[in-house]
Amino acid sequence: MSRIDSRTPEQLRPITIERGWSKHAEGSVLVSFGDTKVLCTASVTEGVPRWRKGSGEGWVTAEYAMLPRATNTRGDRESVKGKIGGRTHEISRLIGRSLRAVVDYKALGENTVVLDCDVLQADGGTRTAAITGAYVALADAVAWAQRKKLVKTGRQPLTGAVAAVSVGIVNGVPLLDLCYEEDVRAETDMNVVCTGDGRFVEVQGTAEAAPFDRAELTALLDLAVAGCDRLAAIQRAALEATE
Amino acid sequence: MSRIDSRTPEQLRPITIERGWSKHAEGSVLVSFGDTKVLCTASVTEGVPRWRKGSGEGWVTAEYAMLPRATNTRGDRESVKGKIGGRTHEISRLIGRSLRAVVDYKALGENTVVLDCDVLQADGGTRTAAITGAYVALADAVAWAQRKKLVKTGRQPLTGAVAAVSVGIVNGVPLLDLCYEEDVRAETDMNVVCTGDGRFVEVQGTAEAAPFDRAELTALLDLAVAGCDRLAAIQRAALEATE
Amino acid sequence: MSRIDSRTPEQLRPITIERGWSKHAEGSVLVSFGDTKVLCTASVTEGVPRWRKGSGEGWVTAEYAMLPRATNTRGDRESVKGKIGGRTHEISRLIGRSLRAVVDYKALGENTVVLDCDVLQADGGTRTAAITGAYVALADAVAWAQRKKLVKTGRQPLTGAVAAVSVGIVNGVPLLDLCYEEDVRAETDMNVVCTGDGRFVEVQGTAEAAPFDRAELTALLDLAVAGCDRLAAIQRAALEATE
Amino acid sequence: MSRIDSRTPEQLRPITIERGWSKHAEGSVLVSFGDTKVLCTASVTEGVPRWRKGSGEGWVTAEYAMLPRATNTRGDRESVKGKIGGRTHEISRLIGRSLRAVVDYKALGENTVVLDCDVLQADGGTRTAAITGAYVALADAVAWAQRKKLVKTGRQPLTGAVAAVSVGIVNGVPLLDLCYEEDVRAETDMNVVCTGDGRFVEVQGTAEAAPFDRAELTALLDLAVAGCDRLAAIQRAALEATE
Amino acid sequence: MSRIDSRTPEQLRPITIERGWSKHAEGSVLVSFGDTKVLCTASVTEGVPRWRKGSGEGWVTAEYAMLPRATNTRGDRESVKGKIGGRTHEISRLIGRSLRAVVDYKALGENTVVLDCDVLQADGGTRTAAITGAYVALADAVAWAQRKKLVKTGRQPLTGAVAAVSVGIVNGVPLLDLCYEEDVRAETDMNVVCTGDGRFVEVQGTAEAAPFDRAELTALLDLAVAGCDRLAAIQRAALEATE
Amino acid sequence: MSRIDSRTPEQLRPITIERGWSKHAEGSVLVSFGDTKVLCTASVTEGVPRWRKGSGEGWVTAEYAMLPRATNTRGDRESVKGKIGGRTHEISRLIGRSLRAVVDYKALGENTVVLDCDVLQADGGTRTAAITGAYVALADAVAWAQRKKLVKTGRQPLTGAVAAVSVGIVNGVPLLDLCYEEDVRAETDMNVVCTGDGRFVEVQGTAEAAPFDRAELTALLDLAVAGCDRLAAIQRAALEATE
Repeated sequence: MSRIDSRTPEQLRPITIERGWSKHAEGSVLVSFGDTKVLCTASVTEGVPRWRKGSGEGWVTAEYAMLPRATNTRGDRESVKGKIGGRTHEISRLIGRSLRAVVDYKALGENTVVLDCDVLQADGGTRTAAITGAYVALADAVAWAQRKKLVKTGRQPLTGAVAAVSVGIVNGVPLLDLCYEEDVRAETDMNVVCTGDGRFVEVQGTAEAAPFDRAELTALLDLAVAGCDRLAAIQRAALEATE
Repeated sequence: MSRIDSRTPEQLRPITIERGWSKHAEGSVLVSFGDTKVLCTASVTEGVPRWRKGSGEGWVTAEYAMLPRATNTRGDRESVKGKIGGRTHEISRLIGRSLRAVVDYKALGENTVVLDCDVLQADGGTRTAAITGAYVALADAVAWAQRKKLVKTGRQPLTGAVAAVSVGIVNGVPLLDLCYEEDVRAETDMNVVCTGDGRFVEVQGTAEAAPFDRAELTALLDLAVAGCDRLAAIQRAALEATE
Repeated sequence: MSRIDSRTPEQLRPITIERGWSKHAEGSVLVSFGDTKVLCTASVTEGVPRWRKGSGEGWVTAEYAMLPRATNTRGDRESVKGKIGGRTHEISRLIGRSLRAVVDYKALGENTVVLDCDVLQADGGTRTAAITGAYVALADAVAWAQRKKLVKTGRQPLTGAVAAVSVGIVNGVPLLDLCYEEDVRAETDMNVVCTGDGRFVEVQGTAEAAPFDRAELTALLDLAVAGCDRLAAIQRAALEATE
Repeated sequence: MSRIDSRTPEQLRPITIERGWSKHAEGSVLVSFGDTKVLCTASVTEGVPRWRKGSGEGWVTAEYAMLPRATNTRGDRESVKGKIGGRTHEISRLIGRSLRAVVDYKALGENTVVLDCDVLQADGGTRTAAITGAYVALADAVAWAQRKKLVKTGRQPLTGAVAAVSVGIVNGVPLLDLCYEEDVRAETDMNVVCTGDGRFVEVQGTAEAAPFDRAELTALLDLAVAGCDRLAAIQRAALEATE
Repeated sequence: MSRIDSRTPEQLRPITIERGWSKHAEGSVLVSFGDTKVLCTASVTEGVPRWRKGSGEGWVTAEYAMLPRATNTRGDRESVKGKIGGRTHEISRLIGRSLRAVVDYKALGENTVVLDCDVLQADGGTRTAAITGAYVALADAVAWAQRKKLVKTGRQPLTGAVAAVSVGIVNGVPLLDLCYEEDVRAETDMNVVCTGDGRFVEVQGTAEAAPFDRAELTALLDLAVAGCDRLAAIQRAALEATE
Repeated sequence: MSRIDSRTPEQLRPITIERGWSKHAEGSVLVSFGDTKVLCTASVTEGVPRWRKGSGEGWVTAEYAMLPRATNTRGDRESVKGKIGGRTHEISRLIGRSLRAVVDYKALGENTVVLDCDVLQADGGTRTAAITGAYVALADAVAWAQRKKLVKTGRQPLTGAVAAVSVGIVNGVPLLDLCYEEDVRAETDMNVVCTGDGRFVEVQGTAEAAPFDRAELTALLDLAVAGCDRLAAIQRAALEATE
């Protein structure tokens, strides 16, 4: 029983990571997970927020947003509504936490990196694509900061890589990297963020239609770990290529 | 090696569930997980939000908030700031999703229940206490709606119970139901929401200080499932008592 | 002709003042005027707002709010609406002014006390209960600040006590301390704030249904002054008790 | 001992009421209390707010605001700040309540009158000038609505007149109609709103520097009642003049 | 074929510029273009916004607003709506830019002038009246700052005068200084801001109903330049008069 | 004397118009004016805003925004700030007006088209690129609506084409299509919107550093008209290509 787009249950969609997309940002990546396209830019500034000044430690944060017509039906702009929705807040916080898990603040020194993840087109998995792409943009931005001598410690500010993927149970079958149509029908939906060496940074599983048992949880975790491993390889290949 | 408050690693704090706390609300519970105290009220109204009208289905939603001095340092009111913070949004959504996992909308009919979870005093685990207490307030509110004939289906709108607990790894030891001091020091922090029969509704694990491996994840899940099981028993006892 | 709850016209509802309600706040009181319950916490911080720096004088301010289901019908949260309503603003300002009337800023020194008055359950007279309870929380907070040597002047920062009560004319009869049902039917409604020695801090009388004449005003003031006098005695008793 | 501007304690400032100031509004008045100038416009619309529809009753409401440079130091615009301050809210509510005290909603029928009171220049007593002027604008607007047959009841929608004045104690002396310099120095400050026949609609007394006793309260009320009586005569004269 | 108000196509409405309207502001003008009345106040403060500190240069900015009943139908207050509309933003920016075109920041030194332009009554051309009046208020404010020695450079901070007028094509005829009724019917609408010596500061032409060709543009520019020239003369006369 | 990027004064930057960029929107274009890249999507919905219902006429509107790192320095998100800035408002309004100039509302029928113009990378001329690209997206969306029979009139809803370009005077030389570096140094800056047949829809000229005279205005208009003419040809070519 094949999937909507003919993938096997444990198959990722076509993944592309296009570095250097923007001429202005210190790191920038256009990442695609199938038809999901997210523009991730990393902005480096000297200095840190007020509450962190004098600590000798840096800061990394993220903001996620969707263009109004990234989805099938146009959504109102949060700037026009005058407030940020709960979903946007939640995903921005997830991306920030995920990246900070591999940042050595002392090594970074008092510099700030802001990751902007703007979804240009959405087809499921926007938050996992954003994390996966933002890591590469962050790596480029950190390398830039090292070249520019903003990072003065001589140590590597990134302690590892980070990638993320969604998994879910659709019609009783655990599937990797859900597209939008699958996501809508999933009984259970999980987002998993792993380090490049296969440990967990975030595990967020939600019963959409029915509670899930321990065996289902185990199957989903297995799928997700394997998927993140492949994404980590794609990230490494992208970073090794000449930009 | 005992815990700050002399508990064993797999021990809950003293849990109390005081029903009928408010004279106005259709269901109301003051729940305590140790020094964490959350007032949960359930408000029933006939009708549903516009987007659900005519569907024959009900709706359940939740709002979480903290009093300014629920914590050790006073926090600014979100009403004064004019916007709701990401953390508040995230927790409100979590509580709503958790409760909806055991609601049969068709059986509820076109009625809405709003759960307000206001933290009067915080000492770690406010979201898990809120979910655990809100379920009891919801059960009381649904019973009220049945007595008042607002629920006309003759079927039970709740398909089961829901409780939640936090777990975490502190100094390498997996612990159940973290108090604030433990939470601050945790390397990994997880919130788990289970149904009364032990299946998962939400699993949210976060690496605070260091990524966690599969064995640690397994240990945390074991602790959490056992903790939720005990909370479910306390909920049952509270609901069986004469109010 | 007795009242809804069988009180005489000049009788207060049962008043309780429970000190030390919160483990975090420097002063905290759960005050009840019958079924009206307000949690008052006093938060002390060193320093004053920018516009007062270097003056050698302290500052005292208050914020009032209602939990959404404190009333018979659930009210929308002001944090969700993104703005504070006129009634909330008005009452917060009244509480702050009332307390400041007995504060010697010079004696307090450059310290700030914020009083949070959160209505957990409402049955009329929430603002007068809030003022009466907040004074006791303030007294505890000031004593704390003296013990902690934040107050360095060696002088007493509070020049007296403050209590408040509502009065009104219902069916032509002047009544003390209106409950919600009486308040709704009152032709005239007045809130009076007095010092412990019986002088006026605030007098706010409003013709709800019909203008009132000088004789009615006099009768209401007489009732209110006597009521505040009894509340002052209850405050003294509460403060003299070992917490 | 005469006052800053040589008035006797019981003397009003020069009062002018200029009707028909605006070509667009159904009623409009430029009112001056000395250097305090408030533009009051009354806008009539058929229909009432949603919560009042079908009641057969009308509605009257008011909004107060200050131009940024109405005062000696420029104040930020509330539109730019994105929120309305507590003082503005409080005064808008006071004006609305004061006018509603003389409105017969049944006689008005389902029509709405909005009073906009914009302070063009401030020198103390802006809220009392606003109430006094707004009443005249309201009277003109109601007459307009009667001429246009929007008021169909054939009854008079206004049951009386309303005027307001401030009083206060400065250097121990009770004074009528404080200008800004007096207001700043007042130990006690009171705003009194009376009907044309001398009864009270609002009494709002505040101890600014020191609590006040019953004798002082009595003296202030006497002054205010006499002042309102003179303002009522000025209103009558203005309304009797050909516009 | 004469205009609604019997003017010729190239005729301005009656223009009045009343200086010294406000007792508080450093410069203040009530300007009328026919029934359009705008109160322009100029507020001088020492110092400049943070981003300009230490530059030795001053700053001039403007805010435009309409009273709710300045127009035929009452508009909601932007302070109540909690946000500023696009039209208000656009006009505020236009006024600021227009005035800055004749300011020598170096000569002004680190002082800030804020121009508040509040429309008391609107009948078309509010932005052009605002610019024309604001220039005179600015000139008075600068003269005040020179007398007070806030301007220390000994040089003239204003390099010239600025005035503005609207032009448009109505029924195919180019007209100067449109009133509201003409403005509504205009096929093309243009606002032109000129210096006192006839050069352009802003040209903003918009096709309302139909695109316009080069000949029409030329005719409109001719009308506008002549109109601005007459306004400049009226400004000079106003400034030469004893205030 | 050649330009920064070696163009002649009357030369456009390389212009590309990529249709069908988004899989969701009814019309979508990625337009580039050199390094300025704007994603324009057109969203069609049946029905019109409330104020237009029953008129038989359609509506077209536009929203413009910049990604935070579209520019050299990261800008704060307007959604995070909770309000839309004046510049954004102004440009959104300009785009909407420009497109509406070629829309026959009757022919469109009661359908709404929203144009979202999101700047992915900015290098000057973002508003003119947005208008030029949005027209093509609008044309595609209208064609879609005709194919889907949403447009029932059988008449062409677009009465012509619209394109826009910036011109300015840099070092005394009039230049076409300024890039960011030129824009910053321009003494005068003008944006011109023309129909495909060379008439004007908008002319917005601003003296940035010095007022401009009639001869300069003429030179700028000549440049702009010629530039728009070339853009119109590029639009036609794009629309004639198979998507």
